[in-house]
Amino acid sequence: MNHPTVLISEVGPRDGLQSVRATMSTPHKLAWIDALVAAGLREIEVGSFVPARRLPQLADTAEVVRHARRHPGVTVMALVPNLQGAQAALDAGVHKLTLPVSASTAHSLANVRRTPAQMVDEAAAIVRLRDERAPAVLVEAGLSTAFGCTLQGAVAEDDVVRLAEALVAAGVDECGLSDTTGMAHPAQVRRLFRRVRAAIGARTGAAHLHNTRGLGLANCLAAWDEGVRTFDASLGGLGGCPYAPGASGNVVTEDLVFMFEAMGIDTGIDLERLFAARAPLREGLPGEPLYGMTPEAGLPLGFLPATRQEHADVH
Amino acid sequence: MNHPTVLISEVGPRDGLQSVRATMSTPHKLAWIDALVAAGLREIEVGSFVPARRLPQLADTAEVVRHARRHPGVTVMALVPNLQGAQAALDAGVHKLTLPVSASTAHSLANVRRTPAQMVDEAAAIVRLRDERAPAVLVEAGLSTAFGCTLQGAVAEDDVVRLAEALVAAGVDECGLSDTTGMAHPAQVRRLFRRVRAAIGARTGAAHLHNTRGLGLANCLAAWDEGVRTFDASLGGLGGCPYAPGASGNVVTEDLVFMFEAMGIDTGIDLERLFAARAPLREGLPGEPLYGMTPEAGLPLGFLPATRQEHADVH
Repeated sequence: MNHPTVLISEVGPRDGLQSVRATMSTPHKLAWIDALVAAGLREIEVGSFVPARRLPQLADTAEVVRHARRHPGVTVMALVPNLQGAQAALDAGVHKLTLPVSASTAHSLANVRRTPAQMVDEAAAIVRLRDERAPAVLVEAGLSTAFGCTLQGAVAEDDVVRLAEALVAAGVDECGLSDTTGMAHPAQVRRLFRRVRAAIGARTGAAHLHNTRGLGLANCLAAWDEGVRTFDASLGGLGGCPYAPGASGNVVTEDLVFMFEAMGIDTGIDLERLFAARAPLREGLPGEPLYGMTPEAGLPLGFLPATRQEHADVH
Repeated sequence: MNHPTVLISEVGPRDGLQSVRATMSTPHKLAWIDALVAAGLREIEVGSFVPARRLPQLADTAEVVRHARRHPGVTVMALVPNLQGAQAALDAGVHKLTLPVSASTAHSLANVRRTPAQMVDEAAAIVRLRDERAPAVLVEAGLSTAFGCTLQGAVAEDDVVRLAEALVAAGVDECGLSDTTGMAHPAQVRRLFRRVRAAIGARTGAAHLHNTRGLGLANCLAAWDEGVRTFDASLGGLGGCPYAPGASGNVVTEDLVFMFEAMGIDTGIDLERLFAARAPLREGLPGEPLYGMTPEAGLPLGFLPATRQEHADVH
């Protein structure tokens, strides 16, 4: 009865909500987060500390952080684009910061008007701030466009590995790899995680994979095979493109949790309660399409979650 | 420039068309099959030899077979439920027969009113007929409900392995494994294909996997890892459940081919032409929802198919 385990990091309240046009009210956000915690989520990216004029949907992030912190055992994360955002995040009391750093120079300049090297300097400044003010807070760098870029096309794997090394040298605790553009395939996921792990070892962080071309779960499986044990996902695939039927940006939390639990890999998440957490999301964003095939199909007859399986064989 | 290769077996004209309410006209079927061949498909399941009153959508299968046979290099397959169907299929000139055999007794009785053991006898009779009348024709058994059954729940792996052994003893050339109910997960796919291969070796046939809970491509990746080199798929995911947004039964050919080609695994299929083959399908079944995320998203900037990649590393 010894099950391998995995950490699902829910990014819907940040990554999802910033991608939709409507703004979810603060009470709805808090109810949604409570439902996610009730389902067993242990890490939630609850918002972003960016200027409110840029992302009005996330202007209440400090309040959301303060609420989420009341749940014991939950790691409350927020995205910060720079040092100023990190100050606000520490003021609000986050447990973990995530700083997006593009591996593609073209994407980095378009997105934050800085080169990847300048973002490494920013990461170093954030780490110094953290060391002074809140040493228990973790700093993660999320390497966006790690698997390809819609502006420059292919991204050299050497660039990704060097950037991860520079960020670790700058003091970040974890470097995750993000398929921001939905261009990754399983062979690439395996190869790049293997190379990054060879370079930065246990500081290799989460897999943030998209389902743009339907390969989201296959890429997660590939990352799992390479030893990745933290996966970003979004409830209902929130953050998708409503114009593409069935399309979504982020990997759908419900389907990902189903895959791992079916495989005998313990997520700590109760699937029925996870499906129930779609209700407050739906109420908070009326009319927004939600994805997820497992909630539609239901759990298979005779389904056993990981902790109820006699023996897990995941290889 | 030595790329591993895979065979994609298109099942839409049979598995897809039998699942939708509308009937595609014969000229539309022929145009669709021609477009599939133009895209590079080398094996197509074009219909089913069942009584026309049971599946009026496939009543023209003999005519479709005769047309498809004109394409050199294409293996023309048809499903047969019994010896009578096999006679009709040989009369029409198929290259390959596929006989569905349920691993679940409950499903077998409900579906063909025979036990799995009786279906093994039927397979033996079909093999004898083939040996007498058309020795070049291949006989495949597709083990349905191999990964679980909506009637009986879990299906014992021992039952699947024993059934595969019995079918090989009865003379079938290939035994494929079908996730008829969309209940499979990657660890199970790996384990079961490994066990079946250990039992029947090179007679292990295609992986026929469904996308009911979003795990279709992850399961295909798992089967590829276990040495499976033939995959059933359906253009536009035809055969899905229109009431479940984004849901589909069969793995979507377009997304599966994209995954393999991106990984440097040669399918022999041109993706743009494959996307173009959706047009005759759409014309022949107006209003029917088509799935597939890669056609919606388009190919990534800088995408190279397998044969244009410098070196393939798929592990």
